Amino acid sequence: MITISQAAELIKQKDDIYILTHQFPDGDTLGSAYALCYALQEMGKRAKVIISGSLPKKFMYMEQNIKAQDFSPQFVISVDVADLPLLGEYRETFEGKVDLCIDHHATNICFADYCHIDATAAATTELIYMLIKEMGISISLDMANCIFTGITTDTGCFRYTNTTAQSYRIAADMLDCGCDGAEINKAMFDTKTKERVQLERLVLDSMEFYFDDRCAVMLMSREMIEKSGVLEEDIEGLTALPRQISGVCIGITVREKKSGGYKISVRTVNGYDASQLCQSFGGGGHKAAAGCEIDKELSVVKEMLLKEAKNQLGEM
Amino acid sequence: MITISQAAELIKQKDDIYILTHQFPDGDTLGSAYALCYALQEMGKRAKVIISGSLPKKFMYMEQNIKAQDFSPQFVISVDVADLPLLGEYRETFEGKVDLCIDHHATNICFADYCHIDATAAATTELIYMLIKEMGISISLDMANCIFTGITTDTGCFRYTNTTAQSYRIAADMLDCGCDGAEINKAMFDTKTKERVQLERLVLDSMEFYFDDRCAVMLMSREMIEKSGVLEEDIEGLTALPRQISGVCIGITVREKKSGGYKISVRTVNGYDASQLCQSFGGGGHKAAAGCEIDKELSVVKEMLLKEAKNQLGEM
Repeated sequence: MITISQAAELIKQKDDIYILTHQFPDGDTLGSAYALCYALQEMGKRAKVIISGSLPKKFMYMEQNIKAQDFSPQFVISVDVADLPLLGEYRETFEGKVDLCIDHHATNICFADYCHIDATAAATTELIYMLIKEMGISISLDMANCIFTGITTDTGCFRYTNTTAQSYRIAADMLDCGCDGAEINKAMFDTKTKERVQLERLVLDSMEFYFDDRCAVMLMSREMIEKSGVLEEDIEGLTALPRQISGVCIGITVREKKSGGYKISVRTVNGYDASQLCQSFGGGGHKAAAGCEIDKELSVVKEMLLKEAKNQLGEM
Repeated sequence: MITISQAAELIKQKDDIYILTHQFPDGDTLGSAYALCYALQEMGKRAKVIISGSLPKKFMYMEQNIKAQDFSPQFVISVDVADLPLLGEYRETFEGKVDLCIDHHATNICFADYCHIDATAAATTELIYMLIKEMGISISLDMANCIFTGITTDTGCFRYTNTTAQSYRIAADMLDCGCDGAEINKAMFDTKTKERVQLERLVLDSMEFYFDDRCAVMLMSREMIEKSGVLEEDIEGLTALPRQISGVCIGITVREKKSGGYKISVRTVNGYDASQLCQSFGGGGHKAAAGCEIDKELSVVKEMLLKEAKNQLGEM
């Protein structure tokens, strides 16, 4: 483990740098990678962001002023990547070749030569912000947009419990650098495709309530997904809907897999353990959010889930 | 107009203070009133919040540690109240008797003996925060919860363009005072009643798209409202739905009035003028959000609105 200032000193001495993100890239891994890339290019270094998979459309503004540079890497940094399998299609290429790993996941396995892991940060971009300042680079508008994006997406617009005073203070600094935080928040949290809205209509229609409305179960069938015409990247976040309803302690989303069978997402309020519920079916996760898969008939799947939900709710 | 420190000096000399909110009280007027009331009671003064209408259930946490005190007012402060009619049921009682007015609305008419109006503040609670500090009182957890609530509700969870670096910095300070910002944001923005979700299903089913999906029209009939069983206070914010859809430039909500006829809400993206559209029907508002009423048959109402929307979209 090295400190941020040690990481800054290390990077200063290097050139021709690749920055790796995790697969299914989100606002934090991308914001971290692009902010760092802008800073390195500003320092006169050659730098490039390597993404496993494609850059989702809604994040494209982050890369718009990156200079395209072709070179072989002399130094490789991973950002927001907790473990090697998350490198996705680039795992084989870079396994054993990552020099520096910067991350905020407590579960990070420290797979690089040097690691800076700080699980108190709500987003990896908070660490990148400190790193860029340590390197003596002033935050440009592009960097500010990237850093802000990481914070707001990883805190769910300051709604998750990982949000700290530091998250708000760095966000404030980014606004001082010209970042239009309101615009970014609107784009991230207040904009839906027509297809997504169509899917929301269909899944909301399927919602069922049990145990005095303390448990809500929502079905997302292949038919609904296909009927709505939604892209996979647009489905994200829908699993939050059942638990958003006041009074619901356990919100369950049952999503039909392409291959048949069902992928289950469970969200709970304080005092109920989603992880424990999912462990009954070989899954896992956190207390408030967990998942599992059950390859049975829908009616059987529901019955199994409701039995465990009832246990959790203490209604024996 | 007086400064915050002049306002602090003025208040220090007074006792037996009433604090007035605006009618249909929101998070900012209530947050301002209760935060100030806690501070005044902390200073050993008698203080009381006077609300026109009732305190919505979701804001009840703000008043929980206020001491109930009975007295005749020697000094009256209004918070977040731009004009006298907004005092609602208390207008007659307090017109001409407000000593100090603290507000962030640019349209404030300065109806009190002393006024502190600062339109650069995203929320009136930002001004109350500075006032409490000027009075030499340290921010308690109760005050922090109230101040945070005002900022987050008046900025739509940091998504409106009024949000400034100051808003984020004060939010950070409130977290340092123990405020659980994530919990408040979740309660304000991530919790819906079952009835509200029911109404969303119904109105989403009614959504129609026009002019290459650049205009969306959503109907909210009395039948839908009654079928869902929703309370009036739960309907707020639904008018944002049509414009949230990516590609939609003009989002229109047509809500059937109890008395017959329709109340129209128009929301637009940059470059389209909701206010101008509504002015054609005798209404008004802002560029991005405006309203009007049309007392005709639904099909006629839609036709009239679509004609104006088409004009706005430049598709002659």
